[in-house]
Amino acid sequence: MSAFKSQKLAIIGLGLMGGSLAIGLRQHADCIIGMDMNAETRQRALDDGIIDIATDDLKTAVHDADTVLLAAPVNVILMLLRKQIAPYLRSNTLIIDIGSTKADICEAMGQLPIGVQAIGGHPMTGKERNGIAFSDPDLYRGKPFVLSPTRRTTPATRIRAHELLAALGALPVEMEAARHDRVVATISHVPYLLSIALMATASHQAQQDEGVWALAAGGFRDMTRLAGSDITMMSDITGTNTQAIAELLAHFRMQLAILETMLIAGDKERLAEALAPQRDSRLKWEKHYKK
Amino acid sequence: MSAFKSQKLAIIGLGLMGGSLAIGLRQHADCIIGMDMNAETRQRALDDGIIDIATDDLKTAVHDADTVLLAAPVNVILMLLRKQIAPYLRSNTLIIDIGSTKADICEAMGQLPIGVQAIGGHPMTGKERNGIAFSDPDLYRGKPFVLSPTRRTTPATRIRAHELLAALGALPVEMEAARHDRVVATISHVPYLLSIALMATASHQAQQDEGVWALAAGGFRDMTRLAGSDITMMSDITGTNTQAIAELLAHFRMQLAILETMLIAGDKERLAEALAPQRDSRLKWEKHYKK
Repeated sequence: MSAFKSQKLAIIGLGLMGGSLAIGLRQHADCIIGMDMNAETRQRALDDGIIDIATDDLKTAVHDADTVLLAAPVNVILMLLRKQIAPYLRSNTLIIDIGSTKADICEAMGQLPIGVQAIGGHPMTGKERNGIAFSDPDLYRGKPFVLSPTRRTTPATRIRAHELLAALGALPVEMEAARHDRVVATISHVPYLLSIALMATASHQAQQDEGVWALAAGGFRDMTRLAGSDITMMSDITGTNTQAIAELLAHFRMQLAILETMLIAGDKERLAEALAPQRDSRLKWEKHYKK
Repeated sequence: MSAFKSQKLAIIGLGLMGGSLAIGLRQHADCIIGMDMNAETRQRALDDGIIDIATDDLKTAVHDADTVLLAAPVNVILMLLRKQIAPYLRSNTLIIDIGSTKADICEAMGQLPIGVQAIGGHPMTGKERNGIAFSDPDLYRGKPFVLSPTRRTTPATRIRAHELLAALGALPVEMEAARHDRVVATISHVPYLLSIALMATASHQAQQDEGVWALAAGGFRDMTRLAGSDITMMSDITGTNTQAIAELLAHFRMQLAILETMLIAGDKERLAEALAPQRDSRLKWEKHYKK
């Protein structure tokens, strides 16, 4: 594998993710052009030396680029792929996105002109705070970066994508789009909805009894942290993964009903038997995760 | 309010909670007698100077004590109150427990001999690690300590209980038992069951796809931390609060179904409208909680 090289690298979207891509790939590109609709963001990126050229025009950004990174919210990525970007892409351009769901995006990438080298991406990283001001050269370092092949993915696409990830220090994980979407429904989208529904339940109870807020502590904090996530982002993401979410919620409901049945039956032995494997899995996963 | 004073203070159960009570009340008692069924625990408590006398005999511990603290699991507290402790309690003895549910315990306290001063307690504190070795004089400091009146609670009981809490630095919160149990079902027991059911859902999905464990990160970690809780403790606790848990689960299920319906309908505007108040409540609560 050679080191990643780009003559003209276009980054669409200069938020935390896009800004960090720019910094991380700075030494690997002759010219980085950043596109963002926000004038202050563009100026900030120029002032910080993160990019060489700033634009709010898609054609200017993408025209002649050998690498295009779509670092925008899922719905913007979909709009760009479906309606706007195709005419400006030259043959052999590598195009990777960072959207949190992959099936719709990879499908749209598969409709790009033949010759474009498109592969879906989802870096498993982020920060509590968003925006270019929090850009970080190490945001992607040591973190899994899912790559989901499309009908426009060739062996050359894969090689170039892996080289790009190596430049960021990210850990490539190849995963078919539908499979990726079921996995993130499990570990992210369903947990988000549970967190919101728990918060709604607590708010309802708190209307009768303010003691809920006064006594809630660490366990409640952990279980509701995701409920504080950005709403536009989360409704975009969940809106492009409804089937996987619905399937997993059905399974979740069944699991919860089993627990409740044992509890109401007062069957403590069977309840403990049902709890034990989940506790074991959690402790085993945490050990693995902390490594 | 005078400073708390005891001539003979009995602590039943020398785990993290009981050990920390002993240390926190050390200067306020002429003699602390600790009861535990584990010989090593008793020796450790004596060696550390946390207690003056150790015993595995309930009568020896409670006989002549003016204050009795039940620092055992819920089911042990219930057994002590219902079947064992009454004959050994002298009149005017203050008895407080630290059990995580209050309705059954306060009911059992109400059956103690007239003259006993009994009040239910639930300190909102703890540590990841259990056992006397982790005892901490500041475990209760600055943390809410619920007091739930019983039929054996007199004005004098309340005053003495508040004095005891002041000695620990705990923040007294008076709350009727049934109300307490609904609150903790909301902030603790339902979240625990959700965490277990989520872990079961993820484990099921991981059987098809190990990628679940590889990609799971911070959000998943937060949402499943409670699933790692001690099983005997949690099945005891939830087993004494089934009605409140069932009521809250019914509400939770409804909230989740509403979110899922909007999601499947692709009604992003209404979904965002449903998410927004929960996000606001979460951010508002966190600010309050961090103070």
